[in-house]
Amino acid sequence: MRIRIDLAYDGTDFKGWARQPRLRTVQGELEAALATVLRIPEVAVTCSGRTDTGVHARGQVAHVDVDPAALAASAGRSPDPALVGLLRRLNGVLAEDVRVHGVREAPAGFDARFSPVWRRYAYRVADAPGLADPLSRGHVLAWPRPLDLPAMNRAAEGLVGEHDFAAFCKKRPGATTVRRLLELHWTRDDAGCAVATVRADAFCHSMVRSLMGCLLAVGEGRRPPDWAVEVLRAEVRDAAVAVVPAHGLTLEEVGFPPDEELAARAETTRSLRGTPHE
Amino acid sequence: MRIRIDLAYDGTDFKGWARQPRLRTVQGELEAALATVLRIPEVAVTCSGRTDTGVHARGQVAHVDVDPAALAASAGRSPDPALVGLLRRLNGVLAEDVRVHGVREAPAGFDARFSPVWRRYAYRVADAPGLADPLSRGHVLAWPRPLDLPAMNRAAEGLVGEHDFAAFCKKRPGATTVRRLLELHWTRDDAGCAVATVRADAFCHSMVRSLMGCLLAVGEGRRPPDWAVEVLRAEVRDAAVAVVPAHGLTLEEVGFPPDEELAARAETTRSLRGTPHE
Repeated sequence: MRIRIDLAYDGTDFKGWARQPRLRTVQGELEAALATVLRIPEVAVTCSGRTDTGVHARGQVAHVDVDPAALAASAGRSPDPALVGLLRRLNGVLAEDVRVHGVREAPAGFDARFSPVWRRYAYRVADAPGLADPLSRGHVLAWPRPLDLPAMNRAAEGLVGEHDFAAFCKKRPGATTVRRLLELHWTRDDAGCAVATVRADAFCHSMVRSLMGCLLAVGEGRRPPDWAVEVLRAEVRDAAVAVVPAHGLTLEEVGFPPDEELAARAETTRSLRGTPHE
Repeated sequence: MRIRIDLAYDGTDFKGWARQPRLRTVQGELEAALATVLRIPEVAVTCSGRTDTGVHARGQVAHVDVDPAALAASAGRSPDPALVGLLRRLNGVLAEDVRVHGVREAPAGFDARFSPVWRRYAYRVADAPGLADPLSRGHVLAWPRPLDLPAMNRAAEGLVGEHDFAAFCKKRPGATTVRRLLELHWTRDDAGCAVATVRADAFCHSMVRSLMGCLLAVGEGRRPPDWAVEVLRAEVRDAAVAVVPAHGLTLEEVGFPPDEELAARAETTRSLRGTPHE
């Protein structure tokens, strides 16, 4: 039985998503909590976006395969349906910086890693001293100079579409860096902070934060808008593109196809890509 | 020369606003930062809302009287106007959980404590497990049961106006507990969290959090909406009214009269009230 888990976390005190020995990671904490609640020795979860150290998530999705007998046994004499109890008990066991928002039986063919059709991230920047809100400093980058959003959006336009994003990726042997960037634009939120929406079929390693570094250089006027496309076309890492700090980045949402297309989508993704990262 | 300082802080790691020996307070940190930047032995600031331990502020206002010669000397050879430099240097000295948003010469008659015509607070509650956002858990109360906002707003209507709020205040000898409650209502924000807007000419000690405790009891259905007015009319503390946790509360804004009325307003307030608290 496959279970879909929707969760959110404050990445500040995690060494990213992926389990690592002796380090506090989201995957490690979630797997430990599931093992405790289900009273089984170990369990493996798979996620939609393998966030780096310090990156947050409001809309992370994961799946885990469990023995229905173990799930039923864990519910004990609780009057709640087993999955309702699992949600409540997981949140009881997990620390407050990770919250499970939903636990449900996954439809046939569902795979958190290979079924998604897109991942959407937000990157937030307070680009004036008056915008620095101490209450959101953990997930908004404080930037000392004002950003020119129209210039950044002109630069972003040239990046949208299917391209080889090698210039913005940490290359991994055997893995393609071709991605379809579906959306990339900046707006200001109600408080006045600059917010980038970045949506793609998938992202290779460090891609979102490199795209942001490129656009911040444009937004500051250090580079012209055309520079973004020049970097893209070179298809090699450009030392002038900074990888911006992790704490401004949040995985907001993962898009899935209709249930009847889940399995086919997973099959296609598996054959097209090596290891989609985040 | 009187300077108006606008500031924001995350109250989590402060023992409230008011200076206390050997404890980290906002007033203590701000006064120390001012003394450092102005290179003077000590300085005293006065604020508009003396927030309790754990209460946050986005729109706190304070004033400080400084010797113009000290201000000019502190600027040294910087090309910035002295107050622009003061703002930048204060933020350089202060920790990241308190940010100064504005520093300017106060108009004649300005007094951060006695000139305001109102203080506005927000109290935020995530009243469903799916609303618990780890990124805002420091300033939003997690509440395990759904709240009935229409019932809370019916209860709130009876509290608006000028009343003796003794039932919701920690009594202080010689200080009146009569206040004018200008606004008290609940809405849901974009994420779905319940947010109370609470605005009054001033608040006595623990008043906002007692009002919230009363309305939460109504929102849960433990008390009928009429109960709020019953509590108010009794004019004595009611043990059934809980003082809700501090971390859901944020001082959002302080309202001042037009400049020409500042001095008269301060005079009126001084004579009417003992010690307005927050």
